[in-house]
Amino acid sequence: MKTFNEISQIIFTELEKLNWNKEPNGLYEPIGYVLSMGGKRIRPVLTLMACNLFTEDIEAAISPALGIEVFHNFTLLHDDIMDRAEVRRGKPTVHKKWNDNTAILSGDVMQIAAYQLIAKTPTKNLKLVLDLFSQTAAEICEGQQYDVDFENRDIVSADEYLEMIRLKTAVLLGCALKTGALIGGAGEDDAQNLYNFGINIGLAFQLKDDLLDVYGDEATFGKKIGGDILNNKKTYLLIHALKQAGESDKIELQNWININDQNRSEEKILGVTSLFNKLGVKQICEDKMESFYRKAIANLENVKILDNNKQELRNLAEKLMYRKD
Amino acid sequence: MKTFNEISQIIFTELEKLNWNKEPNGLYEPIGYVLSMGGKRIRPVLTLMACNLFTEDIEAAISPALGIEVFHNFTLLHDDIMDRAEVRRGKPTVHKKWNDNTAILSGDVMQIAAYQLIAKTPTKNLKLVLDLFSQTAAEICEGQQYDVDFENRDIVSADEYLEMIRLKTAVLLGCALKTGALIGGAGEDDAQNLYNFGINIGLAFQLKDDLLDVYGDEATFGKKIGGDILNNKKTYLLIHALKQAGESDKIELQNWININDQNRSEEKILGVTSLFNKLGVKQICEDKMESFYRKAIANLENVKILDNNKQELRNLAEKLMYRKD
Repeated sequence: MKTFNEISQIIFTELEKLNWNKEPNGLYEPIGYVLSMGGKRIRPVLTLMACNLFTEDIEAAISPALGIEVFHNFTLLHDDIMDRAEVRRGKPTVHKKWNDNTAILSGDVMQIAAYQLIAKTPTKNLKLVLDLFSQTAAEICEGQQYDVDFENRDIVSADEYLEMIRLKTAVLLGCALKTGALIGGAGEDDAQNLYNFGINIGLAFQLKDDLLDVYGDEATFGKKIGGDILNNKKTYLLIHALKQAGESDKIELQNWININDQNRSEEKILGVTSLFNKLGVKQICEDKMESFYRKAIANLENVKILDNNKQELRNLAEKLMYRKD
Repeated sequence: MKTFNEISQIIFTELEKLNWNKEPNGLYEPIGYVLSMGGKRIRPVLTLMACNLFTEDIEAAISPALGIEVFHNFTLLHDDIMDRAEVRRGKPTVHKKWNDNTAILSGDVMQIAAYQLIAKTPTKNLKLVLDLFSQTAAEICEGQQYDVDFENRDIVSADEYLEMIRLKTAVLLGCALKTGALIGGAGEDDAQNLYNFGINIGLAFQLKDDLLDVYGDEATFGKKIGGDILNNKKTYLLIHALKQAGESDKIELQNWININDQNRSEEKILGVTSLFNKLGVKQICEDKMESFYRKAIANLENVKILDNNKQELRNLAEKLMYRKD
């Protein structure tokens, strides 16, 4: 079995080999640009790791793994237009470096490129993998739509939020794992347990993101602390704060939410954070994160392979949970 | 064998059955809206007609046919954002009725929905049909990119223009026909001849569009005459006018191109049209269109089925060539 590092290396090498130096250059150059921005490449790595649980020969899973990574980067490209984000990983976003039309059209062809890589799945698994991928892709769009919808709503429940992040983030991790498992020859039960492992890791991962945005260390987190607070983003923390708050805390929280004065940013972050602390929502979020993590580990326990072979995936899950960036 | 009208009826009925009344409504409602705008549904009709050349049972081709139509409408949706078009078929475009973000995201999920319909192709044809579809979809994006690129170029050759419309328009007609043929059980040669038939009909179709935009009858054409002239669109007519013109005609044509005064629209259309007439480019365009039409008919001749069974496709090709709208 290959280690996480060995598999990461394969993914980095194979991603480099994809050729975006084609005509019309105006269409394909932005794709190469987006993919060169870097990232952990967690999703395609999960595909190969899941495949490797069931077979030593993971060659057949490489193209579908890359398809999942290309699709993930396509969603970032289009999300950045919608969010009017100007910077990603320290570089100008595509719609900023080129323009909106380029970002739309390059994104469209990137989605097609993802499907072309998925289509290289061996024939015997093609239909199942293709349908899983399409369902997942549609769910990610649904998650993005709910995310947009929630911005314009006063109240979002914790369950609604969890369903949104399941769609927007977790299903692609589940899909990545199940795709690798199926290609590796896993039975339906094992493939489904790995899918569920991905879902629960994905949910924990996103809650960790919410926590890092408030409680992270700016130096290691790599971006400004408090971004969600300034954007009034209805994260798991804010949703629970609004739920737990008594009359006067709720008024204070609502006051902070109504303040958009850029000169009062630091003050707003401090004010909301101290309300979060007072209301104990950090603990609530950490408990929920832990509970998803434990579910994920239980899903992995249920996969019928040698326990020893699960260690790399367990290590990765732990690393994602206790990360600082 | 079914008539064109019978097959059209199947397509209209089956398109109606697709369910876009799903959650989140903000994501799926615009898809139903776009698909309710109407249109000739030529592409899915071609798929079923091509299938019907080889088998009486065209059931298996219905979902892929719908996938091609959904994809076509997705391209219109995203093109309308890029062109800032406010009206399509007399109704507000999606980005106008909702907003840009909705149009981007609903378009994205519409592309996925197209793939989900394509994925219903019977397993034995799936890989071939899927790869053809993806290649075609990428080519359409490439054609759109060239179209945008050409707007910012001073000189576009006739060959470059024809290659652009091949990609942007013709390949989807070819893909529609070949998809139906493959599912119907056609051999590779027959399927390829039908693909080529679609390419040549598509090229003739687009040249007809260029002609109608200048020489059509406003009442039957359904939209304003002279739109391409006002937009300085480098159509086959304008490209040849610039090529044929002597020194003084070229200066006059360039003067008209430089005029953007809305109050002089009628004057500009008349001025450019009379230069087109003087330079004989209407005839050049009609000759080219006829030559593609003849090639298409020759492609159809080469398909190894009873000549009598080709009559419905021949009629359709003729109708598309001599249409007034």
